[in-house]
Amino acid sequence: MYYFDNAASTKPTQDILQTYMTVSEQFFANPSSVHSFGEKASQLLNQARQQVAEILRFDTSEIYFTSSGTESNNWVLTGITQALKERHPDKNRILISSIEHGSMTAQIERLVHQGFKVDLIPVTDQGLVDMDKFANLLDNDVLLVSTMAVNNEIGAKQPLIEMSVELMKYPTTAWHVDAVQATTSELATIHNNRIDLVTLSSHKFHAVRGAGVLAKRKRIASHPMIMGGGQESGQRSSTENLAAIVTMSKALRLVSEKQADTHERLEKYKQQIIEALKDNNWNIHTPKESSAHIICASYEGIPGEVLVHAFAEKDIFISTTSACSSRRRSAHATLRAMGIPDSISESAIRMSMGILTTQEEVDYLIKQIPHITNKF
Amino acid sequence: MYYFDNAASTKPTQDILQTYMTVSEQFFANPSSVHSFGEKASQLLNQARQQVAEILRFDTSEIYFTSSGTESNNWVLTGITQALKERHPDKNRILISSIEHGSMTAQIERLVHQGFKVDLIPVTDQGLVDMDKFANLLDNDVLLVSTMAVNNEIGAKQPLIEMSVELMKYPTTAWHVDAVQATTSELATIHNNRIDLVTLSSHKFHAVRGAGVLAKRKRIASHPMIMGGGQESGQRSSTENLAAIVTMSKALRLVSEKQADTHERLEKYKQQIIEALKDNNWNIHTPKESSAHIICASYEGIPGEVLVHAFAEKDIFISTTSACSSRRRSAHATLRAMGIPDSISESAIRMSMGILTTQEEVDYLIKQIPHITNKF
Repeated sequence: MYYFDNAASTKPTQDILQTYMTVSEQFFANPSSVHSFGEKASQLLNQARQQVAEILRFDTSEIYFTSSGTESNNWVLTGITQALKERHPDKNRILISSIEHGSMTAQIERLVHQGFKVDLIPVTDQGLVDMDKFANLLDNDVLLVSTMAVNNEIGAKQPLIEMSVELMKYPTTAWHVDAVQATTSELATIHNNRIDLVTLSSHKFHAVRGAGVLAKRKRIASHPMIMGGGQESGQRSSTENLAAIVTMSKALRLVSEKQADTHERLEKYKQQIIEALKDNNWNIHTPKESSAHIICASYEGIPGEVLVHAFAEKDIFISTTSACSSRRRSAHATLRAMGIPDSISESAIRMSMGILTTQEEVDYLIKQIPHITNKF
Repeated sequence: MYYFDNAASTKPTQDILQTYMTVSEQFFANPSSVHSFGEKASQLLNQARQQVAEILRFDTSEIYFTSSGTESNNWVLTGITQALKERHPDKNRILISSIEHGSMTAQIERLVHQGFKVDLIPVTDQGLVDMDKFANLLDNDVLLVSTMAVNNEIGAKQPLIEMSVELMKYPTTAWHVDAVQATTSELATIHNNRIDLVTLSSHKFHAVRGAGVLAKRKRIASHPMIMGGGQESGQRSSTENLAAIVTMSKALRLVSEKQADTHERLEKYKQQIIEALKDNNWNIHTPKESSAHIICASYEGIPGEVLVHAFAEKDIFISTTSACSSRRRSAHATLRAMGIPDSISESAIRMSMGILTTQEEVDYLIKQIPHITNKF
């Protein structure tokens, strides 16, 4: 199997699964239990929190564990937005980039229903936040801005530094960055003090599924979305999923330590694959400013699903665009926001790599591209 | 180690961990991915859903996977309550029993803030819903009733059959049952067509952590709490935690098949332990009508935490009462609702068993009870 669908989900490594087993077997007590066995579980949880904090350059007390990236993103637009509004009753606008993941955009209707004015931040034809338009949209009424670090459909690396310069002018506007696709090779982009909130998802960097992070600066007001036993400093209740959290912190350390190497390798692979696609008359939608691990391309006239199946016949697994929307045939939101007509985006596919991707796999993929293309 | 804290969290069995490994390694694709590898993951998910549905006696389309019991309980009092209210704008009352888990009671303030009138259903001195008072509280304005099947602190088995008779008179009132503590030996109590919504939590029956169930009849209106990619029929977004879900369905099958045997064994152990505690002048708070796996007792004058540590010195792990509240020293909500003064409930502890508990472990516990008690 040649797996090029890492942006949808990555394979947990043997090492990670082993850690998962060990924690599940040896530290199965509830971290809230007062006995020493519970305390050991609690200590392990705190070590994981400390490690994630160091890698993200947040304070340990600013790291909250959730069940997924989607949950973290939902929390931002529910409890946190509500608390921000209570602190700044005069601010009523929310800016969300037009290329965000469904876990942000699906909530817009709820926000509007609550009385917020939500504007979508336009992107350029390269899929990057349009800085002029962003600057024009910003004013003192903006309560919250939410943007991605790396787009999940085309890999576009957003201009977070330029955005932070603009946002410095509005220190009381909260800024959330969905960094779910940044972990593979662009973790450094979120090392930025102006960013208030960061979302991560465990299964995008070879940890097991079921854990997410919301890093939240102390300065950001917050109410919980999920209430109950008062775990996570009262901000996210539920018995802590210790084994998933510990493996997530370990996987984040591994992916963090390998950033430079991964970036160099995958960037080389990306260029090789892009050249092969171009040689076979594919359109490339991934811009120059993009993460090393994602390639979005289209072959006009052939539906994306047909292309995916053609690759699968050669044991190569790719996506249409976002896995989350692929079964539902929703429009390719990012390509549409870039001004690409649906007639082209319907023929778009995404190839995505991870730290386990090898040159041999890439060579095989490249060798198959002309065979597959010639069928059409 | 003698583990008597199964109501807080259970140990995943070797068999379950093995299944977890297999699914994580061999079915790591995103179930939403259109390729055959994603489809296989999706099929596995549907099989798990079917199995859970059969055991709970719901339709397959009525089973929703969440990340935990706490999440399921929060969903009931957010998106679902909101949708119920839209369908029945005239109904404005919510009844929650006075002995519910924190994941229900912590949300009451939010409900009141939204304009609902929330009443707590009183319990008897045995910790059982007071049927006369419950009947008096019910009227056509009640939108939702939420009660436990088995109480987490003392094990009291709620009169669900009697309650369903009362609730038959109000067919448009939704009824949610938190069955998190019912899985060990009281699963049959939720085989009741009048029950509209059921919450389960994976880690209470030897599955890994990070999965929960909300079973919801088709007749119940619903909005999602967590929005995004549209998973779980659009009702609970987030990439499905396949390995945790599959192991949960397997563990539920195992615990379901063993109900009769478990009930008989644990009921015997419970009586043996209760006798030993009584012989040593402990107060027993667990009523006759209780689940086989939970014992709540107190030893006057000695704080619960001190008692927990005294048992831990003998390598026996028990809780004060609910693990979720034990670190936070909150009052023992259930004992208080039963009318037991704080001076006694502060000396309360909970011993809880699971399907792995053996006669040898119980014999050891019983042997230690006089030694531990004599210290005080």
